[in-house]
Amino acid sequence: MAGLIAPVARLIEEFSKLPGIGTKTAQRLTYHVLRASTDDARALAAALIGIKENVAYCSVCCNITEAGVDPCDLCADPRRESGRICVVEEPLDVLAIERTGEFRGRYHVLHGAISPIDGIGPERLRTRELLSRATAGGIEEVILATNPNLEGEATAMYLADLLRPHVASVTRIARGLPVGGDLEYADDVTLIRSLQGRRAVER
Amino acid sequence: MAGLIAPVARLIEEFSKLPGIGTKTAQRLTYHVLRASTDDARALAAALIGIKENVAYCSVCCNITEAGVDPCDLCADPRRESGRICVVEEPLDVLAIERTGEFRGRYHVLHGAISPIDGIGPERLRTRELLSRATAGGIEEVILATNPNLEGEATAMYLADLLRPHVASVTRIARGLPVGGDLEYADDVTLIRSLQGRRAVER
Repeated sequence: MAGLIAPVARLIEEFSKLPGIGTKTAQRLTYHVLRASTDDARALAAALIGIKENVAYCSVCCNITEAGVDPCDLCADPRRESGRICVVEEPLDVLAIERTGEFRGRYHVLHGAISPIDGIGPERLRTRELLSRATAGGIEEVILATNPNLEGEATAMYLADLLRPHVASVTRIARGLPVGGDLEYADDVTLIRSLQGRRAVER
Repeated sequence: MAGLIAPVARLIEEFSKLPGIGTKTAQRLTYHVLRASTDDARALAAALIGIKENVAYCSVCCNITEAGVDPCDLCADPRRESGRICVVEEPLDVLAIERTGEFRGRYHVLHGAISPIDGIGPERLRTRELLSRATAGGIEEVILATNPNLEGEATAMYLADLLRPHVASVTRIARGLPVGGDLEYADDVTLIRSLQGRRAVER
């Protein structure tokens, strides 16, 4: 198209490849970069290269770690309870749980969930590494904190069967009404889970 | 925060600087890049550098052009009417007008609009270059195609006064109801413009 010169077309195309970024947004971002300083553009480019060159995976928990830092800071921290492993799908889930300050154990990052539709079986996830940790002994509890959706539930069921012979306690995070939510507007499945997961009211 | 390693934090921060990208979206994009291939990340980084290194401004119309291509393809095209200049705010506006196929003249890109609130006066825009083109002679019509908002209107009024002594005809694109729109839902200002801009129905 007249006016759309090659370097501009190329950046629009690359931005469009990112998830949730359509052509219009990609155009807007591209013209922003065009107007921004060269330093700003270089900083983003350097951060993109940096994340590929300076990120590695922890050999213990499989979470991302800075290149050369293995095991990761969390796995190396002697103040964390080593007998408790919280299993999550993605590195961002570790951040979410850390933000709560409620969990003081270790993590294991699967990097995905079982999804037959997408052709993702347990062998595509970091399940072997998790089984090794469980069979090595010293683990009292594995908390399955995969997402409360179809894939996450399937993954939790699979892992529960896999780990039960080796670990004293395999638990699943509670599913129920979100705090601040409204019973009237809750979906049926959440309400059913909420009833099934009911607990005695402490005096 | 535990788990948020430096290269990841840095890319989240850089993505957040882009317009319309909040922290959550920046996190999502960052973890997408982390999972994507190194080639994909490098391609985006190269496109970012490329747009700063390979884009220049046409010395005639001030639109962006590939480095070394001056005047730009549109200004160099002998098939375009050289007596008609369409003035727009941004390079993307040139694309929008070219898409219609309705205009066969030349362009002039201001790179912004007059905005006293943001401290942008006419001297910050490419108005001097436009005046030079107008005073050089041979221009029958200048079409002011700045945006139909406060800044765009102010810019059009300013340019009309500036150019009128030098150009036979200074016109403004029509403002009115968008095609496919609904009179009932049109805002008052648009409706007023639409009435003011009424034209005799051709037989």
